[in-house]
Amino acid sequence: MASKEMYALGSQASVIRDLFAYGQEQAKIVGSEHVFDFSIGNPTVPAPACVKEAMEDMLDTRESVAIHGYTAAAGDAVVRQGLADYMNQTYDAGVKANNFYMTCGAAASLTITLKALVETPQDEVLLVAPFFPEYTVFIHNAGAHEVILPPDTKNFQISMEAMEQAITPHTRAVIINSPNNPAGTVYSADTYTKLAAVLNRKSKEIGHPIYLISDEPYREIIYDGLPILYVPKFYPNTVICYSYSKSLSLPGERIGYILVPDCAADAHHVYTAVCGAGRAMGFVCAPHIFQDVVLKCLGQFSDVKLYDDNRKLLYNGLKDMGYECVYPSGAFYLFVKSPEPDACAFSEKAKKLNLLIVPADSFGCPGYVRISYCVDPDMIRRSFAAFQTLIDQYK
Amino acid sequence: MASKEMYALGSQASVIRDLFAYGQEQAKIVGSEHVFDFSIGNPTVPAPACVKEAMEDMLDTRESVAIHGYTAAAGDAVVRQGLADYMNQTYDAGVKANNFYMTCGAAASLTITLKALVETPQDEVLLVAPFFPEYTVFIHNAGAHEVILPPDTKNFQISMEAMEQAITPHTRAVIINSPNNPAGTVYSADTYTKLAAVLNRKSKEIGHPIYLISDEPYREIIYDGLPILYVPKFYPNTVICYSYSKSLSLPGERIGYILVPDCAADAHHVYTAVCGAGRAMGFVCAPHIFQDVVLKCLGQFSDVKLYDDNRKLLYNGLKDMGYECVYPSGAFYLFVKSPEPDACAFSEKAKKLNLLIVPADSFGCPGYVRISYCVDPDMIRRSFAAFQTLIDQYK
Repeated sequence: MASKEMYALGSQASVIRDLFAYGQEQAKIVGSEHVFDFSIGNPTVPAPACVKEAMEDMLDTRESVAIHGYTAAAGDAVVRQGLADYMNQTYDAGVKANNFYMTCGAAASLTITLKALVETPQDEVLLVAPFFPEYTVFIHNAGAHEVILPPDTKNFQISMEAMEQAITPHTRAVIINSPNNPAGTVYSADTYTKLAAVLNRKSKEIGHPIYLISDEPYREIIYDGLPILYVPKFYPNTVICYSYSKSLSLPGERIGYILVPDCAADAHHVYTAVCGAGRAMGFVCAPHIFQDVVLKCLGQFSDVKLYDDNRKLLYNGLKDMGYECVYPSGAFYLFVKSPEPDACAFSEKAKKLNLLIVPADSFGCPGYVRISYCVDPDMIRRSFAAFQTLIDQYK
Repeated sequence: MASKEMYALGSQASVIRDLFAYGQEQAKIVGSEHVFDFSIGNPTVPAPACVKEAMEDMLDTRESVAIHGYTAAAGDAVVRQGLADYMNQTYDAGVKANNFYMTCGAAASLTITLKALVETPQDEVLLVAPFFPEYTVFIHNAGAHEVILPPDTKNFQISMEAMEQAITPHTRAVIINSPNNPAGTVYSADTYTKLAAVLNRKSKEIGHPIYLISDEPYREIIYDGLPILYVPKFYPNTVICYSYSKSLSLPGERIGYILVPDCAADAHHVYTAVCGAGRAMGFVCAPHIFQDVVLKCLGQFSDVKLYDDNRKLLYNGLKDMGYECVYPSGAFYLFVKSPEPDACAFSEKAKKLNLLIVPADSFGCPGYVRISYCVDPDMIRRSFAAFQTLIDQYK
């Protein structure tokens, strides 16, 4: 007596959540110091001080109804102007307050954007493997279906041949995610340039624009001084989905935005449909106090150096043991090739050593595992003996 | 190049928002003291002190990652246990933590519940006029369509004959809302008893359970010492949609819950589908800090006495002038019969006097207007001259 589809979604076990739950149980048996949980991507670096200061300041100086009242559905106008100013100063983006629609985080940004863009059940949305598994759920919710591009396991960029072949007259949008969860890689300017060329050519060929949905929750978590690229500069027909979950360590508070720049095709039309989709799904407005928090914290971020230290520690440690690791340039995931073809079997062997690492099959990339390093560095150090024991089994 | 349906929803003018925007503009011309805006239902009574205290306490005593991290998708287990304890102590509800799914407010509670319950495009969801207009948007989002019961303009309860006639084999659910927006009325125990009898009989007749979705954002905003009734006691097959927007004056923060009690048909199945629907639409979890705020504020509410004072002032004032008013027992709306059949024309005449009142056509109840009294009492007093001028036009 309920939707079969929703029941299936609600009862579906997530590999990540299962591993995490297993770790919690094991910790009770063997002690938490003997469980090495690299399963989930919950930020461990605290929010920058400005978050607490902003909240305290508001509680001290503003009336309750001003702090907690409804905002406009798209978000407070002053906050959106602040976002526009910041994007213009930082990326020369040329955007206005009215290009922003504030959301309850990255997942909401994506479900709303997809629902706004999808027109018919024949619509196809392209995913570039490896990709965040919930993308397929969100695409189905919008009434479309996914077409998956196989991973470029050489460089973890995008295979333009595969992209070219995958596009059909039904292609509505392409979702990309850089820095990438799970691969920890970052798309280069060259990749964006080539991608834009393919999408422009193909858009012309199929007779309608292909939207690029750039999912950027890890935008500022980037290493080695790599530049942050503003995607619409390469391909104007881009909608940016952003979240402060990682950049301000606020994952539980659900705050982010959709940016539909004027350079996107039918920008005003798409933006209006975004407003409609948010309304249809009952989002009403993004949490008010966190709208103001992000305004007061513009340009400030959680301390990425702590993730960077973990990154170096883990990457160098595992490489020295003989693991084949994808060089991590962003986000907080290390992507490691399974020493046997079946990454699930590998993950199971790791689990026996209380080492919880996620097989990447559900990310569209079999044969790899994802290791989240948003963890205590001490746990990384303590885990090395187990990682050594694990790889020794393959020697 | 976007969903036509979402574009239409995004561009659709809302009567309420239009009036509100008009009022803001008029205030610049004639001065805000000469504009009497009774259009929107934004709480004006501050949140109780416990809200600020709870937030300050958390900011002072907890680590950032503990305050702002992800919770389980259904909400923090300790918070949900607190909700269960409160409901059991207050209403002898017999519920457990796992009956609660925390949401981003009432709209999310409804969109998730509807998406969880609707099985086929033939499914019908019954609405009892007058009703909150967004219900139809939420029903369409779930893929079903609405069947509207005409208003019982005598008592503003439910016409059981109309209910009986409206139910078909496709009826999946009935949405009720008491205290009612826009009528300001409260369903009696007698109404619930009769409704349960009809729904039980009809469920048997059509061969499957009819779910009662009880939308209760105004639950505690109730006057004259009327009892708050726990709906599943009358009709077990009930799903409660709740929000703290009004009861704690937190409308912008998006916090509420869905309660699927074990007594509901296939309760576990429905609850699981609720989890799936929340996931599909990208809700992830309800804002974390406000989950903890509601836990720390259990049993505390915004000061209803202030609304009660407004209620008496407005009701008595308008009645004395000769307006035909529905006696308000709950929420913060006064429902007034238009002195001419066309409530839109009446509202337009009011607008010329800078009196902003909402024609109830979009609420499924033509011939009436909704007057929100969650306003400054001084504005009510200052508005009386205009209300007098308005009704004099009909004498």
